[in-house]
Amino acid sequence: MWPDRRILDLFHIELPIIQAPMAGPVFADMVIAVAEAGGLGSLPTANLSPEQTRSELETIRRHTRKPINVNFFCHVPPVIDPAREAAWRQRLGPYFAELGVAPPADLTARSARAPFDDALCRLVEEFTPEIVSFHFGLPEASLLARVRATGAVIISSATTVDEARWLEAHGCDAIIAQGAEAGGHRGIFLGSDPLIEAASQAGTIALVPQVVDAVKVPVIATGGIADARGIVAAFALGAAAVQIGTAYLFCPEARVAAPHRAALRQAKDNTTALTNIFTGRPARGQLNRAMRELGPLTPDAPAFPLAGQALAPLKAAAEATGSGDFGSLWSGQAARLGRRDRDLPAGELTRALAAETQALMGTVSLSSRSR
Amino acid sequence: MWPDRRILDLFHIELPIIQAPMAGPVFADMVIAVAEAGGLGSLPTANLSPEQTRSELETIRRHTRKPINVNFFCHVPPVIDPAREAAWRQRLGPYFAELGVAPPADLTARSARAPFDDALCRLVEEFTPEIVSFHFGLPEASLLARVRATGAVIISSATTVDEARWLEAHGCDAIIAQGAEAGGHRGIFLGSDPLIEAASQAGTIALVPQVVDAVKVPVIATGGIADARGIVAAFALGAAAVQIGTAYLFCPEARVAAPHRAALRQAKDNTTALTNIFTGRPARGQLNRAMRELGPLTPDAPAFPLAGQALAPLKAAAEATGSGDFGSLWSGQAARLGRRDRDLPAGELTRALAAETQALMGTVSLSSRSR
Repeated sequence: MWPDRRILDLFHIELPIIQAPMAGPVFADMVIAVAEAGGLGSLPTANLSPEQTRSELETIRRHTRKPINVNFFCHVPPVIDPAREAAWRQRLGPYFAELGVAPPADLTARSARAPFDDALCRLVEEFTPEIVSFHFGLPEASLLARVRATGAVIISSATTVDEARWLEAHGCDAIIAQGAEAGGHRGIFLGSDPLIEAASQAGTIALVPQVVDAVKVPVIATGGIADARGIVAAFALGAAAVQIGTAYLFCPEARVAAPHRAALRQAKDNTTALTNIFTGRPARGQLNRAMRELGPLTPDAPAFPLAGQALAPLKAAAEATGSGDFGSLWSGQAARLGRRDRDLPAGELTRALAAETQALMGTVSLSSRSR
Repeated sequence: MWPDRRILDLFHIELPIIQAPMAGPVFADMVIAVAEAGGLGSLPTANLSPEQTRSELETIRRHTRKPINVNFFCHVPPVIDPAREAAWRQRLGPYFAELGVAPPADLTARSARAPFDDALCRLVEEFTPEIVSFHFGLPEASLLARVRATGAVIISSATTVDEARWLEAHGCDAIIAQGAEAGGHRGIFLGSDPLIEAASQAGTIALVPQVVDAVKVPVIATGGIADARGIVAAFALGAAAVQIGTAYLFCPEARVAAPHRAALRQAKDNTTALTNIFTGRPARGQLNRAMRELGPLTPDAPAFPLAGQALAPLKAAAEATGSGDFGSLWSGQAARLGRRDRDLPAGELTRALAAETQALMGTVSLSSRSR
């Protein structure tokens, strides 16, 4: 039925479709629906407290016995740079005046975006998710060993061949090759010049085969894939499965603020860009006023995740009036392909994507995996 | 044998592989070799005088009776902006001092990169190439009508769905969907904010199906395709053929300066970026010193093609010492996939790509073209 069974066998799932862990829109109900449909549901934790993560995991384990993925950010905490943070606040000053809100007094207050730590690792040990995925590399060795000891399959995102090799060398069981088309945060974790790294990210059709050639573990393609055509293309490129994000944002389970939802519905192929103004790290979203006027990419944004705290009051004030001018509108480049005649629930979407892929492949036998 | 015959039937060729018209490296010998192998050879004219173009066309017609493509730039000539040009020369000043060469006195001297005009149109009327392709849109209506009257099939590049619709509405018989991975100049011709347009270009896996959904004419995929995996992926996305550039730069027929060739041999997935410093328009090349220090994208570069004349003396001086620091090193993101154990001549490469694609497809029947 499927041209490559490596990920299906590794994850013990039926369909080679992974719902991307999108922090903000995705909670237990979507994870359960995708898992029950036979795909891999992924719980994002980057925006949750450990208590909220526990609550979501309890709900998931109550409602499905299928394998699940839990995703953690494992960034290095930022170095505080008072001069840069002050300069950024000053640059935002006119917007605070325009919207009539007070700028945040201090960007260095503890962020909700804490990296993977002992508290989160204890939740992994308690709930033993079958798959644990990381973004921005991997956590430090002792934490990773504890995750490994739970029996979890460990995966992470690579945006370059160098990152893919690094992840394989550090024990990843599979690698997500994140093409430049992908929405949300780039998983970039190697390199020393953030703006050059952002400018040199490869698209899925170029990245996936180069990663496949460089590593032995199976590769999951993500970035710009939102329908059966993209899934078949990913198999042709050598991927063993796909991860799909933006298409799931149209599901009724997705918690998407009204301005974000409107931007997704009006999305075209050329309405997104990579920006670092919302968090300090490059991420793809639908273009809005803040991205156009402050970036989209700027060397002035404070380090991740401090930039986000500076903009948060502007985002809240704008959203209160129905405006998406100052909030992140995360989206990949194939949002339009994810729009359907009606907004399918996540389980139905997963099954429809699989059935349409089978139909498009017809009697495909991608017999040779090498060029 | 092939899942889609529309381009094969329209162009009267045997293999759905178009060798990209790369101005600089490609001359008559490569065009002839690809045509004789059954693909579509493409003669670039952007860097040639009308006399040189005539000479190449005479050679081609003497050596092959197969259909050929001739490619023309059809940009709007630049508006002279003395203040901006002076500022750019000033910014380059330290480099002229370092390399010990004199800056050009005037950027507005007639460039070799003249857009399609009466003289070039008369060559089309005389040599009647079976396919005429344009970059940066289409020429003005009276010139286009003269090309049409020769019986030529007319094609052009779209970097967005809006551009694809525009090209179809203005009479293109097929459209090249140029994904962001592609090397050399982006075909961008619509829009009003060049840096935002450059930042929002979609990758091939996202762009091709959105273009296919938007137009009725057949679509040629280009960008990041350098081996059989990319070709099969392009068919899955709905393309009827592919255009391949960088892989042909490894052929012995390609006239590639030594520093450029070295950069291509060392290329990785993440060593290119879009830059406008070399010509004034965004184009993808291997990262070098000039791109890192001046760009890669900057609002300061003079309009196309004036920026190129400012850098030309630096490029020449650097190349004389074997350095690629100041020259354009055009390349797509899949250069590494185009490298083979040995450098195949262009005809052999065309046949090998076709045979490897057939092998990978196995018994593919991509029966359904819609999602």
